[in-house]
Amino acid sequence: MQTLQVDLGERSYPILIGEQLIDRGELLASHIRGKQVAIVTNDTVAPLYLERLSRSLAGFHVTPIVLPDGEVHKNWQTLQLIFDALLTARHDRNTTIIALGGGVIGDMAGFAAASYQRGVDFIQVPTTLLSQVDSSVGGKTGINHPLGKNMIGAFYQPQAVLIDTSTLATLPSRELSAGLAEVIKYGLICDERFLGWLEDNVDRLRALDQEALTEAIRRSCDAKAKVVGADEREAGIRATLNLGHTFGHAIETHQGYGAWLHGEAVSAGTVMALEMSKLLGWISTAERDRAVQLLSRAGLPVVPPADMSAEDFLRHMAVDKKVLNGRLRLVLLKRLGGAVVTSDFPREVLEATLNVNYEALTQ
Amino acid sequence: MQTLQVDLGERSYPILIGEQLIDRGELLASHIRGKQVAIVTNDTVAPLYLERLSRSLAGFHVTPIVLPDGEVHKNWQTLQLIFDALLTARHDRNTTIIALGGGVIGDMAGFAAASYQRGVDFIQVPTTLLSQVDSSVGGKTGINHPLGKNMIGAFYQPQAVLIDTSTLATLPSRELSAGLAEVIKYGLICDERFLGWLEDNVDRLRALDQEALTEAIRRSCDAKAKVVGADEREAGIRATLNLGHTFGHAIETHQGYGAWLHGEAVSAGTVMALEMSKLLGWISTAERDRAVQLLSRAGLPVVPPADMSAEDFLRHMAVDKKVLNGRLRLVLLKRLGGAVVTSDFPREVLEATLNVNYEALTQ
Repeated sequence: MQTLQVDLGERSYPILIGEQLIDRGELLASHIRGKQVAIVTNDTVAPLYLERLSRSLAGFHVTPIVLPDGEVHKNWQTLQLIFDALLTARHDRNTTIIALGGGVIGDMAGFAAASYQRGVDFIQVPTTLLSQVDSSVGGKTGINHPLGKNMIGAFYQPQAVLIDTSTLATLPSRELSAGLAEVIKYGLICDERFLGWLEDNVDRLRALDQEALTEAIRRSCDAKAKVVGADEREAGIRATLNLGHTFGHAIETHQGYGAWLHGEAVSAGTVMALEMSKLLGWISTAERDRAVQLLSRAGLPVVPPADMSAEDFLRHMAVDKKVLNGRLRLVLLKRLGGAVVTSDFPREVLEATLNVNYEALTQ
Repeated sequence: MQTLQVDLGERSYPILIGEQLIDRGELLASHIRGKQVAIVTNDTVAPLYLERLSRSLAGFHVTPIVLPDGEVHKNWQTLQLIFDALLTARHDRNTTIIALGGGVIGDMAGFAAASYQRGVDFIQVPTTLLSQVDSSVGGKTGINHPLGKNMIGAFYQPQAVLIDTSTLATLPSRELSAGLAEVIKYGLICDERFLGWLEDNVDRLRALDQEALTEAIRRSCDAKAKVVGADEREAGIRATLNLGHTFGHAIETHQGYGAWLHGEAVSAGTVMALEMSKLLGWISTAERDRAVQLLSRAGLPVVPPADMSAEDFLRHMAVDKKVLNGRLRLVLLKRLGGAVVTSDFPREVLEATLNVNYEALTQ
């Protein structure tokens, strides 16, 4: 087991990472102050891990709350099911809510914890690689609104995050790869040595080597914690975490949410950000190719959808072409391991980036 | 105008109190960081003050959001109307939400501000005496759930509170008296000199003397700020703010919410707490009578409902008679201006308190 402390003053908390941690109730118990616990999960994860986690919490009064699986349920109606269950089982202010599942469960359970009786304790047990390396750090919780994603929520820190790497055995391999897109992102934006480590270990990660997974998750969370710790409320450098996301969101929107996994869209978007950084003369062709190759070895798409034109991208990036400069801020790379957030680029370079034949480039 | 600074570290904010402040846009403008403002109010207050407040904010893009009036609407469905309006008018993270109205509007607008895009700025313009002296300080926001009042919410501090004492001219006199119950409460729990000032000025307050109102509101907010500042999350002495509330809630529940105003129930409940403090030998009969007389002069009921038995009180106070001691914590007075929270009293004294003939006592 590895432990990482996320340093946020009085809201600091540990991330525990290792194999079969779900069975180690003592790790959880030390972060639970009352006798009441509610486990929020979904109908995909519940059959796999709910009983094991409940058994680890034998000394507590456990209320299981099983929600329907899927981003489409990340809304008020589903959140209300959590409040209904908490109130029906008479959970008081000293209760602890445990999120068992991926990012959607973490976001909803976290917002429920932030709002129930104006705030109760919260522990995350993320079971997807994406949520382990992304949602474990940063404190973002929330739900979608019909008019926008993540529009309603809170910044709310957990008491602890327990990452059981063995849960990844039940994760579809496509989702494992999507999680690796975010892992590779951390290397690209702030840690070239980690990038080298990933090149050496990407095959072990895909083969679910537990030691390699633990190390990759720890280094990813550490990278995110450093960035978030310097900028908790997303005023400045936290935005570098969005490498590949502006292009990626355009892909997700154009293809319809769900057609591409988030990590897949981020991967193709990262390739575009790499190419643009190369066109600006900030990184070399060899550096671009090195990163593209790693994404590809992780099982990720490195070419945007063939049917998306430059116009499609601009429209989904909500860019008025006339006021392109000064408006659109992109995360680009000054070097591998060194990202910047900038709107200081010639419009022509963005357009050139959108018109590149990525199929040919990544052959 | 008087100004009071509520000291909460980086979340400190000023309370501005005085006549016709709604028309002084410059006071608000200095606490608004963007160009977007949403005014959340209800259909009772909107015809009275919405246009004047909007005119004061002439330099901003103002979105008025008018909700149905009443505690019955303090729920998710109504909160959703705020989010709908904010998103439809494309309010971004730099928007400011202004609550214009009483406690229900402040609670809902505050929770909307806490949750919209994970937190935007919030300014309170309370228009009832109760909300001016109670909700202005403490940061409690939230909505009701079918299974409990104020079960969903956040602790969230405003950027500023603007109290226009002239808005009290449109407040029904019964509600003005109900607000005075809370004002008198501050004197009773922590400030005997303020109690003396209130005895000298209660008639001026009921006659809406603006100078007296400004002074009473400032001293009330100051008292609450001192208590809350020492105990922001309600762990200890903040509970003294609930003087009269345990008995009062029993009255509200028994009579059905709305039959007695909150302040009216608190007044009768305070008389019971005074009597119990006297029975415990902590205050004298003369001190009890002095406080009862002040409540009476404020236009408040000082006798609990004639049809409520001791059993009724115990039932609504959720007390199992067998485990009475150690369970029920009451706010009582060691002296006028000195409250304590205690469960250290003989069961017989509580029962005696519930069986007193208050009609006779207050003749």
